[in-house]
Amino acid sequence: AQVAGTGAGEVTSSSVTLFGVVDLAVAYGHGSENNLSRLVSGANTVSRLGFRGVEDLGGGLGAGFWLESGLNVDDGTGSGSNTNNQPSGATSSGALTFGRRATASLMGTWGEIRLGRDYVATFRNRDQTDPFTTNGVGASLPYAISIIGVTETRASNMIGYFLPAAALGGFFGEAQYYMGENTSGSDGNGWQARLGYANKVWGVAGAYGLTKYAQTATTGDNKAWNIGGHWNFGWANLMAGWFEDEVERTSTLKGTGYILGAVIPIRVDQLKISYSSYKTDDVGDPRTQKLAVGYVYNLSKRTAAYGTYAHVQNHGSAAVGLNGSLTGPGKNSDGFDLGLKHSF
Amino acid sequence: AQVAGTGAGEVTSSSVTLFGVVDLAVAYGHGSENNLSRLVSGANTVSRLGFRGVEDLGGGLGAGFWLESGLNVDDGTGSGSNTNNQPSGATSSGALTFGRRATASLMGTWGEIRLGRDYVATFRNRDQTDPFTTNGVGASLPYAISIIGVTETRASNMIGYFLPAAALGGFFGEAQYYMGENTSGSDGNGWQARLGYANKVWGVAGAYGLTKYAQTATTGDNKAWNIGGHWNFGWANLMAGWFEDEVERTSTLKGTGYILGAVIPIRVDQLKISYSSYKTDDVGDPRTQKLAVGYVYNLSKRTAAYGTYAHVQNHGSAAVGLNGSLTGPGKNSDGFDLGLKHSF
Amino acid sequence: AQVAGTGAGEVTSSSVTLFGVVDLAVAYGHGSENNLSRLVSGANTVSRLGFRGVEDLGGGLGAGFWLESGLNVDDGTGSGSNTNNQPSGATSSGALTFGRRATASLMGTWGEIRLGRDYVATFRNRDQTDPFTTNGVGASLPYAISIIGVTETRASNMIGYFLPAAALGGFFGEAQYYMGENTSGSDGNGWQARLGYANKVWGVAGAYGLTKYAQTATTGDNKAWNIGGHWNFGWANLMAGWFEDEVERTSTLKGTGYILGAVIPIRVDQLKISYSSYKTDDVGDPRTQKLAVGYVYNLSKRTAAYGTYAHVQNHGSAAVGLNGSLTGPGKNSDGFDLGLKHSF
Repeated sequence: AQVAGTGAGEVTSSSVTLFGVVDLAVAYGHGSENNLSRLVSGANTVSRLGFRGVEDLGGGLGAGFWLESGLNVDDGTGSGSNTNNQPSGATSSGALTFGRRATASLMGTWGEIRLGRDYVATFRNRDQTDPFTTNGVGASLPYAISIIGVTETRASNMIGYFLPAAALGGFFGEAQYYMGENTSGSDGNGWQARLGYANKVWGVAGAYGLTKYAQTATTGDNKAWNIGGHWNFGWANLMAGWFEDEVERTSTLKGTGYILGAVIPIRVDQLKISYSSYKTDDVGDPRTQKLAVGYVYNLSKRTAAYGTYAHVQNHGSAAVGLNGSLTGPGKNSDGFDLGLKHSF
Repeated sequence: AQVAGTGAGEVTSSSVTLFGVVDLAVAYGHGSENNLSRLVSGANTVSRLGFRGVEDLGGGLGAGFWLESGLNVDDGTGSGSNTNNQPSGATSSGALTFGRRATASLMGTWGEIRLGRDYVATFRNRDQTDPFTTNGVGASLPYAISIIGVTETRASNMIGYFLPAAALGGFFGEAQYYMGENTSGSDGNGWQARLGYANKVWGVAGAYGLTKYAQTATTGDNKAWNIGGHWNFGWANLMAGWFEDEVERTSTLKGTGYILGAVIPIRVDQLKISYSSYKTDDVGDPRTQKLAVGYVYNLSKRTAAYGTYAHVQNHGSAAVGLNGSLTGPGKNSDGFDLGLKHSF
Repeated sequence: AQVAGTGAGEVTSSSVTLFGVVDLAVAYGHGSENNLSRLVSGANTVSRLGFRGVEDLGGGLGAGFWLESGLNVDDGTGSGSNTNNQPSGATSSGALTFGRRATASLMGTWGEIRLGRDYVATFRNRDQTDPFTTNGVGASLPYAISIIGVTETRASNMIGYFLPAAALGGFFGEAQYYMGENTSGSDGNGWQARLGYANKVWGVAGAYGLTKYAQTATTGDNKAWNIGGHWNFGWANLMAGWFEDEVERTSTLKGTGYILGAVIPIRVDQLKISYSSYKTDDVGDPRTQKLAVGYVYNLSKRTAAYGTYAHVQNHGSAAVGLNGSLTGPGKNSDGFDLGLKHSF
């Protein structure tokens, strides 16, 4: 959880790496309407299975691939993908896919061209300013209840370019263009960009994204811009983000949010705290605030036990219930995750 | 096919193991109504692809994961999973999932905590008392036609505990709690337990399981208890099981079955024989008996050719047809599998 | 892209091989009705992930398995399978499957018995006579618009036999029987065979296939026969194929096509040219001709950049649009792919 670029320009090996995470937690949610107990997957880190590799082509050039499947380890199912950046493109329920990432890359001293399905630029600030990296009961509200639709996290059919991470003295950036691939209309087409700077102590980045949809009473172009930063004091890594989302319906819907967070190292463990808020100008002026506290007890570099507690306060027509619980408009909710994470 | 505990407490390696089985057979079924020829997957051992690993955390503690996908190698599809232990939670047809097993474990001298999707306790006796381990045309009737529904074999959203296999002088056991995860009602919630003893010659185990469903004319709580044992005389491993199943419909439905089986080693090969029976108190008092004989010709430790022949006698309203054939109430059916199994 | 047999009789290793291809291209199509830009997967080589292995059983005998999943790397989804060789057997949209190939084999000096899902014999000539191996905008018309249905490329529930490649002085062949596995009727049942000869310079092969379907106004038995050959002059590998397809509807539909192609090595690169044609006797006498030119710039043995341009001329009621573009009856269409292929 620090504001940084992504791995452009790495050319180190020609082998295939098999990697993954299994993360399961007992999750409890308490709302004004009901309570719910579940076993959930990925409350600390998203459960996954992946295959990736890079090849050194000589002359500073490299090629790489990345195939990563999101898993629901609580029931063995896959977490799906989307073929056209539109609601109609959702994959079948429960099926394994490589929907977390499916890319081919060409890398050089000039940066990286990355083709396929990947994170959108505006997601990175949502993720990197959140001590809980958008996962579990503690997930940042500007991520968890954003009004942005299908392309909030990822987009398919994407042509992306990353600036060379090593060459620019701390500056990093990326630009993306993606396609809905309709025979008529531009639904699901979009572009995003992000630019930032980071050194060993602090970093900051801003991002903007647009995904096009035909305007109706309930949907329209999705626009997001956000800015995030962190300052690592050693005793704590503080982070903050500001988020503005917009859905250009016949009557435009706006969402605004922010997060303040800290990751505090305690020996080999981590204490995580965050306060986040999100509101929209929809009917009833919904506004929600969340406080989350978590502790990650590292049993090894690959394995951790963890616990997270979160509490939300709803205002106006907001009715956010944590961990699947139902809560009424303006009512509160709280919940916790108690889990085990194992990487391989 | 011997009554035993399961691998609690093993901490041996930190690497990932890729493993699998491809098993294909020409299968023929003959019924009173029609006959059917098919190519089937898993008639000796269920075809699968999996990834598993364990990590030694020091101090007698270990962590592990297991992701195992059931395969239909005859057509390349996956054998599916279920997200909520209810008929509504079935995954999409043909999709690969890790529905055979998806678990994370924490292991110690005190036993194993296992989270995720796994076998239920009452399945283990159905499996371990059957020379054909519930697969193919020879599969035990108390497994193949049990009245128990979605959770007959596995459950999702499970919290399981295994006694430490090594520490208890031959005693083993497990307890499980699993959740349907509904916002109201307890459909798909359940618990199961099993306790047993085994030494190098003989073993015995009893199990009980309950899965809750709202009561209607056709469904209700599923209850199962069973007991299984084996005695290995060297020249033959004899096994037997008794099974009682119950579906608490408005008018309760009861099913009762048993199996007697033998696995006879012949050099490196195996001759398998079983006789099983299952009846219910449903309309027409259906009752079915099956005789199955099979031979496994081992070409190596990993590869075998096999053949199985089975014959069923139906009584009352029972109309069990083998290998997909249709047979009328009270009529007989027989069938065979002729296959190739390869492990990796 | 040369007419040859397939790997019968290879017994070299007992390990598991993980293999794959990620291939992504920017694809543009221009038609008389509209144009379309997309990111597409597999325009040079079908994107895939697979697991395969062989085991030496001693005495000249071997066993093998092959599980290969087709990938759409542009969006992370899988390319599906079919369980019964009929339209009703299609798998769920987007799900990963091992639908490209799922087989178990027993191999000896007498050849190979291969069970499961695999290419049909008549596909091999469509593939091996096409410089573009049926992929991307340049794909041969006798493949891309053939009237043959579900089993044009592969069949499930197949029992196949391959002649021993090494023992017959250049002759090769295969025979296949596959099943629709219906409780009544023979829809999806079929058989195919192929026989050929190849040496280091030239090769030729003929194939025939039949898949049975109940006769209606729109469908019926699918029959295909074709012949293909190649002559490698060193400066160019020339190839040609002739294809006859038939769907025995109430009023029989016939399709006829041919291809002439060349693969010209230029240093480590390849220039590809093909001319193909396909026509049917359907209403309006549709007939289409295609010219395709492509260049593969090999960055390494595993990685290539490539570009392909193709142009089609439609006649009569034919309305083939390239790369997803729509074009009117008798109108032309063209398109290109610009891509990156990486194998692992």
